Amino acid sequence: MQNLTALLLSLSILLATSHASVQDFCVADLTLPAGPAGYSCKSAANVTAADFVFTGLRKGGNTTNIISAAVTPAFDAQYPGLNGLGLSIARLDLAPGGVVPFHTHPGASELLLVVQGTLVGGFVSSFSNQVYVKKLVKGDLMVFPQGLLHFQINGGGTTTVAFASFGSANPGLQITDFALFANNLPSVLVEKTTFLDDAQVKKLKSVLGGSG
Amino acid sequence: MQNLTALLLSLSILLATSHASVQDFCVADLTLPAGPAGYSCKSAANVTAADFVFTGLRKGGNTTNIISAAVTPAFDAQYPGLNGLGLSIARLDLAPGGVVPFHTHPGASELLLVVQGTLVGGFVSSFSNQVYVKKLVKGDLMVFPQGLLHFQINGGGTTTVAFASFGSANPGLQITDFALFANNLPSVLVEKTTFLDDAQVKKLKSVLGGSG
Amino acid sequence: MQNLTALLLSLSILLATSHASVQDFCVADLTLPAGPAGYSCKSAANVTAADFVFTGLRKGGNTTNIISAAVTPAFDAQYPGLNGLGLSIARLDLAPGGVVPFHTHPGASELLLVVQGTLVGGFVSSFSNQVYVKKLVKGDLMVFPQGLLHFQINGGGTTTVAFASFGSANPGLQITDFALFANNLPSVLVEKTTFLDDAQVKKLKSVLGGSG
Amino acid sequence: MQNLTALLLSLSILLATSHASVQDFCVADLTLPAGPAGYSCKSAANVTAADFVFTGLRKGGNTTNIISAAVTPAFDAQYPGLNGLGLSIARLDLAPGGVVPFHTHPGASELLLVVQGTLVGGFVSSFSNQVYVKKLVKGDLMVFPQGLLHFQINGGGTTTVAFASFGSANPGLQITDFALFANNLPSVLVEKTTFLDDAQVKKLKSVLGGSG
Amino acid sequence: MQNLTALLLSLSILLATSHASVQDFCVADLTLPAGPAGYSCKSAANVTAADFVFTGLRKGGNTTNIISAAVTPAFDAQYPGLNGLGLSIARLDLAPGGVVPFHTHPGASELLLVVQGTLVGGFVSSFSNQVYVKKLVKGDLMVFPQGLLHFQINGGGTTTVAFASFGSANPGLQITDFALFANNLPSVLVEKTTFLDDAQVKKLKSVLGGSG
Amino acid sequence: MQNLTALLLSLSILLATSHASVQDFCVADLTLPAGPAGYSCKSAANVTAADFVFTGLRKGGNTTNIISAAVTPAFDAQYPGLNGLGLSIARLDLAPGGVVPFHTHPGASELLLVVQGTLVGGFVSSFSNQVYVKKLVKGDLMVFPQGLLHFQINGGGTTTVAFASFGSANPGLQITDFALFANNLPSVLVEKTTFLDDAQVKKLKSVLGGSG
Repeated sequence: MQNLTALLLSLSILLATSHASVQDFCVADLTLPAGPAGYSCKSAANVTAADFVFTGLRKGGNTTNIISAAVTPAFDAQYPGLNGLGLSIARLDLAPGGVVPFHTHPGASELLLVVQGTLVGGFVSSFSNQVYVKKLVKGDLMVFPQGLLHFQINGGGTTTVAFASFGSANPGLQITDFALFANNLPSVLVEKTTFLDDAQVKKLKSVLGGSG
Repeated sequence: MQNLTALLLSLSILLATSHASVQDFCVADLTLPAGPAGYSCKSAANVTAADFVFTGLRKGGNTTNIISAAVTPAFDAQYPGLNGLGLSIARLDLAPGGVVPFHTHPGASELLLVVQGTLVGGFVSSFSNQVYVKKLVKGDLMVFPQGLLHFQINGGGTTTVAFASFGSANPGLQITDFALFANNLPSVLVEKTTFLDDAQVKKLKSVLGGSG
Repeated sequence: MQNLTALLLSLSILLATSHASVQDFCVADLTLPAGPAGYSCKSAANVTAADFVFTGLRKGGNTTNIISAAVTPAFDAQYPGLNGLGLSIARLDLAPGGVVPFHTHPGASELLLVVQGTLVGGFVSSFSNQVYVKKLVKGDLMVFPQGLLHFQINGGGTTTVAFASFGSANPGLQITDFALFANNLPSVLVEKTTFLDDAQVKKLKSVLGGSG
Repeated sequence: MQNLTALLLSLSILLATSHASVQDFCVADLTLPAGPAGYSCKSAANVTAADFVFTGLRKGGNTTNIISAAVTPAFDAQYPGLNGLGLSIARLDLAPGGVVPFHTHPGASELLLVVQGTLVGGFVSSFSNQVYVKKLVKGDLMVFPQGLLHFQINGGGTTTVAFASFGSANPGLQITDFALFANNLPSVLVEKTTFLDDAQVKKLKSVLGGSG
Repeated sequence: MQNLTALLLSLSILLATSHASVQDFCVADLTLPAGPAGYSCKSAANVTAADFVFTGLRKGGNTTNIISAAVTPAFDAQYPGLNGLGLSIARLDLAPGGVVPFHTHPGASELLLVVQGTLVGGFVSSFSNQVYVKKLVKGDLMVFPQGLLHFQINGGGTTTVAFASFGSANPGLQITDFALFANNLPSVLVEKTTFLDDAQVKKLKSVLGGSG
Repeated sequence: MQNLTALLLSLSILLATSHASVQDFCVADLTLPAGPAGYSCKSAANVTAADFVFTGLRKGGNTTNIISAAVTPAFDAQYPGLNGLGLSIARLDLAPGGVVPFHTHPGASELLLVVQGTLVGGFVSSFSNQVYVKKLVKGDLMVFPQGLLHFQINGGGTTTVAFASFGSANPGLQITDFALFANNLPSVLVEKTTFLDDAQVKKLKSVLGGSG
């Protein structure tokens, strides 16, 4: 018996030498600079079960805004336990008529799950500009391939809640309108690179807090 | 105007030459043999929006069994649109007292989301055999690092529904009891490799349909 | 001496057994369906030096169109020798005032090299909508991170030629205007998901050959 | 002549600017926190041939224990020169009757080589619980796919020595019995998640130093 | 009881739908063309334990040749069970004075294990041309980073046996002398690209069966 | 309106929490130690457009040396903006008769673009020692698979300029002659491991600054 306990201890000691290694998990230490593969690992000695749990998505964001929608991410920066595990998630809340405008995730594909209400999801392929649109009900899934423009819209009469999973701890989120109009890129450059009219560009810049 | 249309057409033609390529997505053709990276791609010409949507998780599996639980996977073999996109999902239904026994996913980490009821999740680290256990309520998330033994149990009085996302289109699922007792591995070998008593092994083999 | 020749032959025979394998290279066989990692390999016995060379970028595309620009890709579907090697390239020709409109590459980062004339390149980050813009002259390089919206414009008085390298044999190319306006996505959906005015959407749909 | 030497020097200088980079190798600096891809690199200036050599497996571990076996890992934490190179190894010593109990490697597949004696290896597939078992003699190899439960047992009359290679510098090692019984996971939870009897669980907890 | 058996069966059926998928393993079907990630998978229904075992390295190759050495690979083309698992191995036999000439493995790093006799291993870094050389005895390990020139030589009086593990199922093997002299590359080109004298090039071409 | 601005701000705040993360890009901080995946990221707050632009290749290196050629790399250590983006580039300048001697890139495949003059490129496969040689003119491309020996030579009467793109931010460059002769590896070892004559080895060692 004590022999086996001895074995256990010896093995524990052996393996404990890799205690600080990337074995098993790598909870992010947000106080250190990140690298291309993610954040440095918090010392395993300081990791607790709480590091692997995230409660920030119990409630959705505030949808009393012009798009009647909110996106609440749980990426590695919000949920350090995901660091290095190649997964993350975000919560979508859409009031009736709510919309998540055209956007992309530069770093991962998205798998969308509807848990309440209904939703119309769509994306556009890059090689033929073909549109793939479907209406989803509770329990349905739709996948949006990495980097492609897509949107979600609540065409129903009740609030919709959905969760978007991503195959990266940091998929990114680029909302086309914000990228084009919510910064100081000169209107003339926006117009030249989008074919949009000057009035349209200036209008959206003012709406979205852009300048130039 | 026709110039731009011409540009559009010319670009379309250029890019159409890569129409059959892996660009954008690769919906699985389950009739062809798979490879290490997944299945061959269905011709893009035959792909429709329906290929990206999965409705098989609207309902959970039957929980009237001894573990009062059901696991319903939506991996690439069930949901061909996921092929090559590095993501999949499964639905967990746990009646009161229901349990998903200790198991691993050899191919990916798991991100669990509770959408109804409550659940206790836990996993064991490999380098110190430390246990990380937490009770989750609706809206909570818990991540289970790739390949580590973990379980889910419904300690509450109502049915629990949860969805497990994976960072692979085919994460695999190995339930320890089934691996040990639901096959023809001779009892003596099971005993030697698990330290379990003969009576215990034979009992579980009979329960789980194993032989030898 | 003959001993070494014998060794050579024996080694050749040994290694020749892996002649059909993925060793060294995997020239695409475009007649077979692709998979998530690329195309099947042409038999090494039929591969010649010509498979590794591409002459299709000696000349640029026709720039007599409304954007005074042309993009000519040499991705795996055009250049099968790149299959599986994680690299591709495209040629950009921009007449004075020419522009490559806002676009993304869903599958790879881009490294742009100016070989003639001058060019202004810019991209927008996803997490702060910050714009990074620079003027490049002959011999300059600019990198555009994967999946982020970017553009190139020739503000000079002479024709500009540049080459864009990509860290994938199939990086994709999604031009935002074509994705939004060059298909049958209903105008009302485009408007809801872009905040653009109805007149603007209908105007660009007609210009770019879209409908609905 | 000095021209070429000049070229050599100039090239050396050019490339020396990347002296601290990840080029060629990245010997682990165990004093810095690890990240998802491994440890930070020791300065190349301080790297010597000794960093690439490991002598700790000349002898096996002590097999005078209840399983008559010992596993001695040479992973990145023991052998820092492996950091970032995607490879590691472990030595197995099994006295007659010795066994490496059912276990998994969460992070890599294993390629086992028998260098002395004989050994029976086996693993269980996850999708059908099928068992793959084979007896190996000196010079034989068996591969165990990533994350699957497997075991090794010495059914012969002499000591067996084998080496297990892994496709990761840190594959991990989770011995099922230790994960279930060598910690403070309450017996009732173990029983509910394994179908094992209370007496069996308590017996193994006492043997393996577990509590609860 | 039958409930659990029912669960087992239902789960088996569910998971059996992914029976043909890449789950768990992908034994190579050498009769189909390979792709960038490896070979297509043999149907799991036809896979047996024998697919995971390789007995071809029980004996070494014939060392009665000018280098008094033999290299016997067990890569995916020889050992189909390795396909997709990211691992392979080769056996080295070196008679006294035997040498494995300077070579590289384009596709993976190498971890060398000496199981009999002694051996001197060495490699050259690319950024400083620094040489790392060590003498190894039985049980010692040396790692050779991916793609770097390295050699092994038996300076002892007895035969040496070693096994080289690789972090790829198909690491490749390019012996510099064979690449330079065992083909029809014109001598003048070899001389221009190696600085070697004409006599030296022609001598080695004749030894190694080259022409031109 | 202010509602949308509020949304913008709230989203900005949400996403700003991941401001320090690896999202979008990871400009190298060369003052910190690198890891297997590259360098640590410079704080995004300090990143400017200049970090993504490199002007060091406007001019080629000095070709007045014995090989009448120069290679000027723009890898991550020279061009920190490439860190983590999986791309890099180098400029080749070859005077008439100039040659880039046989070399390999251990970390990536190379895609060569001729922008001035002509060039003969060639590489040797590892499994059959077959040579693939082609003459390229302005605008032509040739791909050299990862880790294989290759060369470039200017057989024309005018200076040639070419750019080599790589699918890694740090592909490495190992020039065979420098690896063999530009260090202190004892001549006897070089001879044993290359079959070269003693006089030849000593001659090249003296030319290339080697010793021993």
